[in-house]
Amino acid sequence: MSAPGTKADGASGWLTVVGLGPGPEDWLTPEARRDLAEATDIVGYGPYVDRVPPGPQIRHASDNRVELDRARQALALAAEGRRVAVVSGGDPGVFAMAAAVFEALDDPAAPAAWHRVPLRVDPGVSAMQAAAARAGAPLGHDFCAISLSDNLKPWEVVTRRVRLAAEADFVIAFYNPISRARPWQLGAAFDVLREVRAPETPVILGQAIGRPDEKLIVTSLGAVDPAQADMRTVVIVGASHTRLIPRDGRQPWVYTPRSYRAPA
Amino acid sequence: MSAPGTKADGASGWLTVVGLGPGPEDWLTPEARRDLAEATDIVGYGPYVDRVPPGPQIRHASDNRVELDRARQALALAAEGRRVAVVSGGDPGVFAMAAAVFEALDDPAAPAAWHRVPLRVDPGVSAMQAAAARAGAPLGHDFCAISLSDNLKPWEVVTRRVRLAAEADFVIAFYNPISRARPWQLGAAFDVLREVRAPETPVILGQAIGRPDEKLIVTSLGAVDPAQADMRTVVIVGASHTRLIPRDGRQPWVYTPRSYRAPA
Repeated sequence: MSAPGTKADGASGWLTVVGLGPGPEDWLTPEARRDLAEATDIVGYGPYVDRVPPGPQIRHASDNRVELDRARQALALAAEGRRVAVVSGGDPGVFAMAAAVFEALDDPAAPAAWHRVPLRVDPGVSAMQAAAARAGAPLGHDFCAISLSDNLKPWEVVTRRVRLAAEADFVIAFYNPISRARPWQLGAAFDVLREVRAPETPVILGQAIGRPDEKLIVTSLGAVDPAQADMRTVVIVGASHTRLIPRDGRQPWVYTPRSYRAPA
Repeated sequence: MSAPGTKADGASGWLTVVGLGPGPEDWLTPEARRDLAEATDIVGYGPYVDRVPPGPQIRHASDNRVELDRARQALALAAEGRRVAVVSGGDPGVFAMAAAVFEALDDPAAPAAWHRVPLRVDPGVSAMQAAAARAGAPLGHDFCAISLSDNLKPWEVVTRRVRLAAEADFVIAFYNPISRARPWQLGAAFDVLREVRAPETPVILGQAIGRPDEKLIVTSLGAVDPAQADMRTVVIVGASHTRLIPRDGRQPWVYTPRSYRAPA
């Protein structure tokens, strides 16, 4: 029995890791849309698979936190001749599925056929960029992006990075700030920052930006409550020279000037 | 005399800072395409204005390094009732025009009418994301983005940040690595990194990625020559655990695993 699109020699298969952007199809690139349409199989975390525009593709939706299994499944399908789109929210290259696919490929136990699969990555708009756009231009100067998940790295590495990033006076974007299994990490990261940065430092919480229920909060390092964030939030903490512009009846704009003078 | 779309009361004007992505229309979001089509005026650096799909819009192309003038012109046009798209390559929020527009708005001398202009930012795929996608997944773990231009910040701030970023073991993306007026900065940044990172550390040079003449070089911190970069290059330097996967007849894939153990 042969599924549609399968070739016995596997020669026609490919694997593309596709960034869906942060939410709406309005941020889905033409490249990503075309690769999704040409795929025979969609592989990904359930909520992302659900966001793929309707089509005849076979959908392999999986649970969260099984990225490597998903990557292996995708490589195996492509090696069999399927045209496989592995989908990620945002940019698949930023804390997402692209690294997992290369980890699976780099496993010494990976079949040689996997190395012959034509492999590509379609970049996309990442969550911090969407939140930044809604808030103004907080990422307009040097910045860093740190995942607060300590599932895959020791917490001491996270705090050390947060401290060095604060000393470097980077704008900081936190991915994976909080979850039921990791309730205290964001508060601990704010505590580290408070030792270096002023309480007035602008803090942006961008929740599900681009989705119908998106929410943007502009607050400060002194006032922010970690409970204002959830799994779908990206947190951006300003640098010492990040500024606010008041707006009538709305949250202020937040931007980081391109010019920099070190704080006195 | 009234140009098309002008309203005497200025009520219909708007200003949107539009990210064109790194090059091809394949990476231009539907949102950006629509806003460009609805604009009466396109404002931007000449080569970016040239990339806007053909249409009846008035094109105000300006020279490089006049970002603030351009931002003021755009705000003034929008306050007069024009529908203005300020265009940037990549993501306008990342080392690009969005910050300049907010700087112009934040000037105490800015007319009150500028504050009434409906203002939006359309995010886009930034150059480091395009280069990362072509190379594999080098940004798959914590990373930072640093502009090497010392036009707007003291060089000591740049070197301090590069050193702290290396100590934090971030993957590092360098924007504006080199130009005729700034020929030595990239080499100096590599020298700082060589004091902390191993010579085998992967280095990616992504030149004009997405354009017809794009070029991707994968090399190492020990071997890289700053002369391999130019104004249209983004440079990505790996973290201590960034890895290579050999490919037959092509440059190796570069990826940074999601899992991290601090180097011994």
